[in-house]
Order: sequence, then structure tokens, then C-alpha cells
Amino acid sequence: MEYAKRVRNELDELILKTLIGEPKELYEASAHLLKAGGKRLRPILLLAVAKGYGLEEFKAMPAAAAIELLHNFTLVHDDIMDRDAFRRNVPTVHSIWGEALAILAGDLLFSKAFEALLMLEDRGINHELVVKAAKKLSWASITVAEGQALDMEFEKRSDVTEEEYFIMIEKKTAALFKTAAEIGAIIAGANEEEVYNIGEYARHMGIAFQIKDDILGIIADESKLGKPILSDIREGKRTILVIYTLSKLTDEEKKKFLSILGNRNAKIEELRYAAQLIKDSGAIEYAESKAKTYVNKSIEYLSRTNIMKEVYEMLRELAEYIVLREK
Amino acid sequence: MEYAKRVRNELDELILKTLIGEPKELYEASAHLLKAGGKRLRPILLLAVAKGYGLEEFKAMPAAAAIELLHNFTLVHDDIMDRDAFRRNVPTVHSIWGEALAILAGDLLFSKAFEALLMLEDRGINHELVVKAAKKLSWASITVAEGQALDMEFEKRSDVTEEEYFIMIEKKTAALFKTAAEIGAIIAGANEEEVYNIGEYARHMGIAFQIKDDILGIIADESKLGKPILSDIREGKRTILVIYTLSKLTDEEKKKFLSILGNRNAKIEELRYAAQLIKDSGAIEYAESKAKTYVNKSIEYLSRTNIMKEVYEMLRELAEYIVLREK
Repeated sequence: MEYAKRVRNELDELILKTLIGEPKELYEASAHLLKAGGKRLRPILLLAVAKGYGLEEFKAMPAAAAIELLHNFTLVHDDIMDRDAFRRNVPTVHSIWGEALAILAGDLLFSKAFEALLMLEDRGINHELVVKAAKKLSWASITVAEGQALDMEFEKRSDVTEEEYFIMIEKKTAALFKTAAEIGAIIAGANEEEVYNIGEYARHMGIAFQIKDDILGIIADESKLGKPILSDIREGKRTILVIYTLSKLTDEEKKKFLSILGNRNAKIEELRYAAQLIKDSGAIEYAESKAKTYVNKSIEYLSRTNIMKEVYEMLRELAEYIVLREK
Repeated sequence: MEYAKRVRNELDELILKTLIGEPKELYEASAHLLKAGGKRLRPILLLAVAKGYGLEEFKAMPAAAAIELLHNFTLVHDDIMDRDAFRRNVPTVHSIWGEALAILAGDLLFSKAFEALLMLEDRGINHELVVKAAKKLSWASITVAEGQALDMEFEKRSDVTEEEYFIMIEKKTAALFKTAAEIGAIIAGANEEEVYNIGEYARHMGIAFQIKDDILGIIADESKLGKPILSDIREGKRTILVIYTLSKLTDEEKKKFLSILGNRNAKIEELRYAAQLIKDSGAIEYAESKAKTYVNKSIEYLSRTNIMKEVYEMLRELAEYIVLREK
């Protein structure tokens, strides 16, 4: 999107400015993933919503930076927990600097997220709205931690239901999308109903985003994705694909499938076999259709808002991009 | 102190109420250290200062909870980084639940710190002061992370100077004491000069506290301390004792001392030998006298404030307790 390209430079400038400090190694480790790339979906969503309710970009920018800093904090810590070695086509923070400094780099990003958000005050957002936005940010950080805990807990279980999966991704992924949109609306002074509807738009989009993420983890082009595919299988993630596949397999296939799932020493042929079982089960099509359903619900909520026409179109496109993207 | 005992129940009730949630395992891991005990020095400092400037305890309580939650977050993560197995006489979070969940438990405590602080709004603190307090809290969390990074960096170096040590503990420890006092004053509506002087009182007290902590790490009664003594030597911490001792040793002793320092496989006799070198060098007396100097400076700043007489006495006692304590 043109809009995304335009605001991205200003956004990245602000983010990287908050990540200059001493000791150098800590700040370098904190900035590493952000410098490696990323789609900046969440901050762009926040900026677009704020603009759609009449707030100038300059004033919303600290909140956008905050959302991206918080997101990257969760990535740095998740990569340690999931023992992931690559992301955004570069080695993960703990692979380069070790676990101890990576924990701390994540903590710093988290602190910086709040620091950035509170800069809203310096850009003329009134104190009441700053407090409201900060409450949303702390809610999101709590909820994302709960979601990641569920995600890890599910790895140890073979009876995770689709319903539980949705609760988990709602917390792990959708909560931050929702919060990004809500904060955008709040700081622009939108009323409660608008905040609710735009939040629901973003929440449904976030669910679709995670489903698509799970699909890409199996079928994507590895170099486009920037991280190893099939790692979800190796880590034993209970994605919607895995849950659906498990419900379709014969007892024997199921036994084999479960022996590969979460086996850190699984050979590449075994991972490919498990991926083939997923594909053959029809899980990809099932998940794609679920994702589309959520995108449609998302757009339904969007249509209930009174957001500026031109931004409306952009947000609709954003929701549609979620299911079309290849990385 | 009578005051501490009285407010502690109410404080702990609020803290533990914020740590009820799902998934259970995550919340249990988060509450573990808090339930194990702790002195609650920082929140009590905050409450006393707020009271000293005329704010009722009920209104200051969320900020006090926030400071303690933030402190415990740093302990949980530091214990992972330092590979410490015991604290407050119980196994550390990562020793029980593993590193992944311990990282997440720390993250949750961090999020909950901001959630608690923002509850100030619900207890009638005006929005401007809430934003000011939140800025102080985010500054503290940034600064503590920088301090911990320095602490870890110093473990790899044998040429750390006393000046560098003071910069490190200023960030790692004193920053949170300072912030506790400042937030107490801010939410009570104290003016800038009061906030500055009470902050300096607490900062100097925090420095004395860390020096005393380093001393106790060598000479304390292990069961009173609640964690293994001599672990600072095993981890290679560059404490003021170590820096002083290194400056006094012969070349041969120095070589031996450095071979033990930071050696995770050092035998208990070797650790005791290193501790003996520290004691024989006069480092304990040197550090004690430094700590006393900082307590005196602390009280000097306190005397420049216009804090309520009765609280003044309590804060003076608190500063004096810092160097007298045995745990």
C-alpha cells in the first residue's frame, strides 16, 4: 500500500531513535529484529485508524511506535521460548547474543513501548486519553502473555480443541491488532461505539491473520517467509491445521503424526510426511475458508463505523491482504 | 517498623488480587516469589512518602503494588540470567517451572505493574499525575534493564573500576528506589523541588542498599539471607568488594582469585578461600564505610524536604536500617 510506504520511514525513524542508548550491546540486540524488517502491520493499522478519525499522523506516531515495540518484544521472547533460530531472514536475537541478553533486550523493548506511548502527552494528546491508551497497552501485554502460555501448554497436549485454539490465538495475536485499532481511535477522540466497532474489525482481522500464519508455516516459500517452514510441526504447535488433521486421520496415521509433532529430533523427511498428511486431509482449504470468514466478519464491523471514507477503503484492503499475503 | 507491618497486608492483598487469572500455571509462577516473602521496602517507601505529602494510603496503594510487581519481574528474569536456584528461601521460578514459563511469568509481572499503576486513575488521582507517574515507571524499567546488562557485561571483565560499579548499581538498584519515592511524591501533588529531594534521598539509600547487599552476599547467615551466599563469587559479579580486593592482592593471589571468580565449577573450599581474601583485604570495612556515607547523604537530602515530621522520622530510620540489616 502507498500509505504504508509513506508512513513507514517516519515510524522507523522514531522507533530506532528510542533504541539508542548504553550499554551498546543491549541496545543493538533490542534493535536487531526491527532493523531486519517486518511488515509493520499493527502500527500502520493504528495510524490509519487515527487518521480516519481525524488525528494527524505526527500526533499518533508515538502510539504506533509503541505497538511495534511491544510486538517485537513478544517476538524476541517467543523466539527464546520456542527455540527459533531465524526470523525475518536473520538469526534471532538469542542465537546471536545468547539467551540472557535476549531476555533483557525483550524487557527493554517492552519498557520502551510504554516510554513511546507516554510521548503522546508531549505531542498534545490530553492526559485522560493518554491514560486510556496506556490501559489498553497494558491489557494487550497481559493478554499476549496469557496467549503465549496457552500456546506452550497446548504443545504438551494432543486433545486441544478448535475452540481452545481460537481462545489461544485471540489472546496471542488478535488482542494486539484490536488494541492497535482501539488506541488509534481513542487518541483521535472517537466515541465508545466507534472504538468498539473498529476494535472488533481489528480483532477479527487478527484471528484471520494468525490462521493465515499457520497456513504459511506449512506451505510458504521459505525465503519469502523469512523463517524455516515446518518449524510449527517440529515445535508441536497445535494449529488449526493440526487439530483438523488429527480429526481426519486413521488411528495408525494419527500415531505416526503425533510421534513427529513436537519431536525436536524429527528428520526433514518426517516433517515433510507430517506436512503431507496435513495437506491431504483438506486442512489447508478448511483453514483458508475459516480465515475468509473472519475477514468478512472483520469488514462487517468496519462497515458499522463512521470512519473517513478514504481510510475505510484502505482498511478494507488491509483485511483482504491478510488472506492473500504470501509472507 | 510498625508502619510497614500495618500497610503490608493491604498491599499484599492488592498485589495478589492482580495475579489471579488464566492460564493458572502462568499466574502461579508469577505469584510464586511474591508469596515467598520479601521485605517490600520499595512499596513501603512509596507509601510513606505519599503519606508524608498528605495522600491517603488507599489512593497510593496501586502505585505501591506497581513498584513491587516491577521489582519482582526483574528478580524473576535476573534469576534466569544469573542461573540462581534459590531466593527468599524457596526455589526460583525457573527452577520450578522451567525457563520458558519463567520468562513469561516475568513478562506478566511487568505488564501487571503498569496495569496496577494505571489503577491510580480509578482511585481519584488526576490524569496528569498518573501520566507523570507512568513516565517515571517506564524510566525505571528501562534503567534497571541497562543496569542488569552492565552487571552481566562486567562479569566478563577483570578491569571494572569502582566508578563503573557505581554507575551500574545506580541503574540496577538505586533507580527503582528513586522512582518509588518520586512517584509517591508526585501522586501526592508535591512540587518539583520536593520530588527532586525525596528522589535523591531514595537514590542514595538505594546505593547504600546495594553495597550492603554485596556485603551480605559474602558474610550473611545463609538461612536469614534466603539465598546461597558466595554465589556472587561463583557468578563473577564485580561487586565493590571484589574491585577493592583486586586492588590489594599480590600478583599471585590475584591470579588465584580471578581463577575462582566466575568459575561455575569452583569447589566450596575455593569459594571460601576467595571470600577469605576479600575479608582479609579490608574490603568489608571499606564497603561498610561507603554504605554509611551514602546513608548520610541520603538523610541530608531528606532533611531538605518539607515532608511531614512523623514520616520524616520513619524515612530516616528506614535509611539507617539499610546498613544495619542482616538480610
